[in-house]
Amino acid sequence: MGERLSRRSLLVGVGAAGGAAAMFAAMGALGLAPVSHETRAFTPPRPGDFSLRGRGAARVVVIGAGVAGLTAAYELGKAGYDCVVLEAADRIGGRVLTLRGGDTLPELNGAAQTAKFGDGVYFNAGAARIATWMVTLDYCRELGVPIETFVNSNASAYVYTGDMRAPARTRTVRADMYGYIAELLAKATDAGALDRRLTKDDRERLLEFLSEFGDIGDTYDYRGSPRRGFDKPPGIEPGAPLPGPDPLSTVLSAGVGRAVTMDFGFEQAAPMFQPVGGMDAITRALAEAVGEHRIKLGTRVTRITGRADGVEVGYAGGTVTGDYCVATLPPHLMARIPHNLGTPVTDALRVPQPMSAGKLALEYGRRWWELDDHIYGGATETDLDITHIWYPSYGYHGQRGLVVGYYAVAEHADVYAALTHDERRRRALTQGKKIHGEKYRSDLLSSVSLEWRRQPHIEGAWMVWPSRGAPYDLLQRPAGRVYFAGDWLTRLIAWQAGAMESARKVVTELHQRVLAEPA
Amino acid sequence: MGERLSRRSLLVGVGAAGGAAAMFAAMGALGLAPVSHETRAFTPPRPGDFSLRGRGAARVVVIGAGVAGLTAAYELGKAGYDCVVLEAADRIGGRVLTLRGGDTLPELNGAAQTAKFGDGVYFNAGAARIATWMVTLDYCRELGVPIETFVNSNASAYVYTGDMRAPARTRTVRADMYGYIAELLAKATDAGALDRRLTKDDRERLLEFLSEFGDIGDTYDYRGSPRRGFDKPPGIEPGAPLPGPDPLSTVLSAGVGRAVTMDFGFEQAAPMFQPVGGMDAITRALAEAVGEHRIKLGTRVTRITGRADGVEVGYAGGTVTGDYCVATLPPHLMARIPHNLGTPVTDALRVPQPMSAGKLALEYGRRWWELDDHIYGGATETDLDITHIWYPSYGYHGQRGLVVGYYAVAEHADVYAALTHDERRRRALTQGKKIHGEKYRSDLLSSVSLEWRRQPHIEGAWMVWPSRGAPYDLLQRPAGRVYFAGDWLTRLIAWQAGAMESARKVVTELHQRVLAEPA
Repeated sequence: MGERLSRRSLLVGVGAAGGAAAMFAAMGALGLAPVSHETRAFTPPRPGDFSLRGRGAARVVVIGAGVAGLTAAYELGKAGYDCVVLEAADRIGGRVLTLRGGDTLPELNGAAQTAKFGDGVYFNAGAARIATWMVTLDYCRELGVPIETFVNSNASAYVYTGDMRAPARTRTVRADMYGYIAELLAKATDAGALDRRLTKDDRERLLEFLSEFGDIGDTYDYRGSPRRGFDKPPGIEPGAPLPGPDPLSTVLSAGVGRAVTMDFGFEQAAPMFQPVGGMDAITRALAEAVGEHRIKLGTRVTRITGRADGVEVGYAGGTVTGDYCVATLPPHLMARIPHNLGTPVTDALRVPQPMSAGKLALEYGRRWWELDDHIYGGATETDLDITHIWYPSYGYHGQRGLVVGYYAVAEHADVYAALTHDERRRRALTQGKKIHGEKYRSDLLSSVSLEWRRQPHIEGAWMVWPSRGAPYDLLQRPAGRVYFAGDWLTRLIAWQAGAMESARKVVTELHQRVLAEPA
Repeated sequence: MGERLSRRSLLVGVGAAGGAAAMFAAMGALGLAPVSHETRAFTPPRPGDFSLRGRGAARVVVIGAGVAGLTAAYELGKAGYDCVVLEAADRIGGRVLTLRGGDTLPELNGAAQTAKFGDGVYFNAGAARIATWMVTLDYCRELGVPIETFVNSNASAYVYTGDMRAPARTRTVRADMYGYIAELLAKATDAGALDRRLTKDDRERLLEFLSEFGDIGDTYDYRGSPRRGFDKPPGIEPGAPLPGPDPLSTVLSAGVGRAVTMDFGFEQAAPMFQPVGGMDAITRALAEAVGEHRIKLGTRVTRITGRADGVEVGYAGGTVTGDYCVATLPPHLMARIPHNLGTPVTDALRVPQPMSAGKLALEYGRRWWELDDHIYGGATETDLDITHIWYPSYGYHGQRGLVVGYYAVAEHADVYAALTHDERRRRALTQGKKIHGEKYRSDLLSSVSLEWRRQPHIEGAWMVWPSRGAPYDLLQRPAGRVYFAGDWLTRLIAWQAGAMESARKVVTELHQRVLAEPA
């Protein structure tokens, strides 16, 4: 394990030279200060905040019943704010959309589809996974929404690029890449090529690590590893090895970087989670806590008028007024709604651009990915336009199951968006067949596809800021009595956690303002 | 993505030189032949096997109601074999042991403990996880045992070695190791140190991969990465970075190899699974299918007598006879039972040696690992004698929860085995406090510990063969009418799948022999 760094002597030296403050700073830098637990500073509004001040909570018009709007109404509701939530669509949830058998999916300039999935089969068409550090899990806990693991990365799933001869398991591709990397670096180290950078102790420790990392033993030659998997797994007999490994050049030419590194990211690392039974469990629980009677579906906002003492929000057939408004529409749609909040607001709303992303649900009557391939959740990664194939992280060992046949983004999504549903399905099946063979097409029971740019009242998968600058800062502030909220106003774009964090910020600011107002 | 290897030209070349057979062989080596799906060749005995031959199934005495014994009785029972299962302990399961509140745990030469866990809290004291390729999952499917993910590796869990100044999250340690490895190899590559090994294309592809693998950008300098995690995660503001990274020497000196590589193995790769509600759901389902009336608990075998036409098995208070016997006791215990199977059998049974392993269950009234640390399942890896701290992969967001305070093997297990339960708990809490602070001790509700060498009728966590040779081969064959089965007779030692594979092998051989006998 190597020698221990002498902490005490180092700290004594710092303390002697710079006093206690320098010593404490050094302790922080060295990690000896108390560990941060990534706590979130948020105190929801409470009824007590008002009762001590002898007045009531304000009335707030929330535009949009997606995650941001529902979270804002939920948190404001805790202190008795009188919220009304206007939602243009005939459902809550926004980009949280769980489709089940019998659900109808509209499409702008396209034919509506009706899901034919069997009992217990669902499709998270939008938000689908939650990282453990995200505030989303705190809401699951608070609202009593049961959670289960979302398998984001699976060593048994496949990798396939056009530069590979055939699909290979992720475990195989990873073992080969790591094996060769370890071999190359170990041999360079052993040959002295890194002597200017490494001490003798460093060299020994690096070689020890590389031997384990690449399973390359003491000779530093990568010649395959049980980590690659087997043609026939070990049992009574030792496992029968897979063919390979291919030579270094072939392994490098496969271009498998994304498949190997996809779960390294802070947002993607295992374990991830999902609500049991569908992602919409969270938005449904929020809506129930807000009160269904406060949520007006099919109510498309046509005008927002800010006044000195309140906000008036018009929709086809009526008007609602409030002391404040929290607007959570996608910014490019909000920019189209007439308002009196000023041209700079409109201009700023037009800066972020909608991104394309689409998904295809493929329902099968037999869970062949489990039965034939021993794949339980996770994703196959490809460089085809389908990008990924996701296997379900629920319903294990059941009869039916639902595979995501593509989760395509940007130009790949646009390719599918331009097609009819039947064409999308046919194209994706042709691609997926390269990995899973004929059953991928022949065993299909039903399918549904969507492109988020073609979803009414949403028209985009998420927003991209060409650069965050003055427009971002402007919209972080209220325009008079109108506050803006959404994942697009955070660093967690395309995550429910972003919408929740943004809603919490606006709720805090609005509440502080209300408390500061003269009674 | 690099250029594609020209498959067609390569195959044409082979075909021209060696004909179709050589071409097909080359296709297999290149991975173009149909993908192996790791199918298992096992056909259980069926009633029809006998009805066509005009005779009945035999009577089989199975010794041991662990996984091997129950699987053997279950599979034989499918064809109507008359099985009786003799179990020395007063419970089924062997090293599958799930403890719940009220359960009593005996200990050889030690005090019995009674678990005080709350409702819904359980402790898988033995087998605890299942890889997706293992036959164990097939039995879960066949027997209707619901499964859920076992989180084996968690980026949010900690790593702590005596050479580190403080615990760090696994994600941080991994990002730093990969970052520096990528930097070292990229710079050596870029400087031409690997030119004899790499073509120009190889170099470019390697550098592209390393840039992504280590998050080192175009300059190949590792200066930290969002993958390390944050002091305050991104939200409205960008995330506040953690201190660090430490210099290369410090990162190398931490000795974190195992923590980074533990899930690379074929047996340990994500995702892994567990039965919902406790691992004993599998053995309970097997026992139910076998028929509880066929299982005699508290029946310790004292003599095994093979005869030309059957087997007689004696126990305190009686004798049972059968046409055959399947003996699934741990070999070192079986070696102590008087028998007439010959000295070579006894000698062979004495070759594998029992391994020490122990676990400590710590029950808390508050799931602080989720609430404070955002750790949902997985394990903290240490070089302390506790080795790991496991967090539960079930009961998320509940009130109580159970942490495994140590899963110690070999000499570390022996340290704990020598102590009383109170001493074990105190020692492990002192160690774990280094990672989790005072709450690790102060919030404890209850605890249970065990050492498998001190479990009656088992006396070992698993068996280790100094080398597999003639004794291993001898025991793979029946001694007259006595067959041996257990994970120790496979390449899957310490896994339920090993016991199941061994039982299936013996069942197949026994059944073939019965079918071949004269009627």
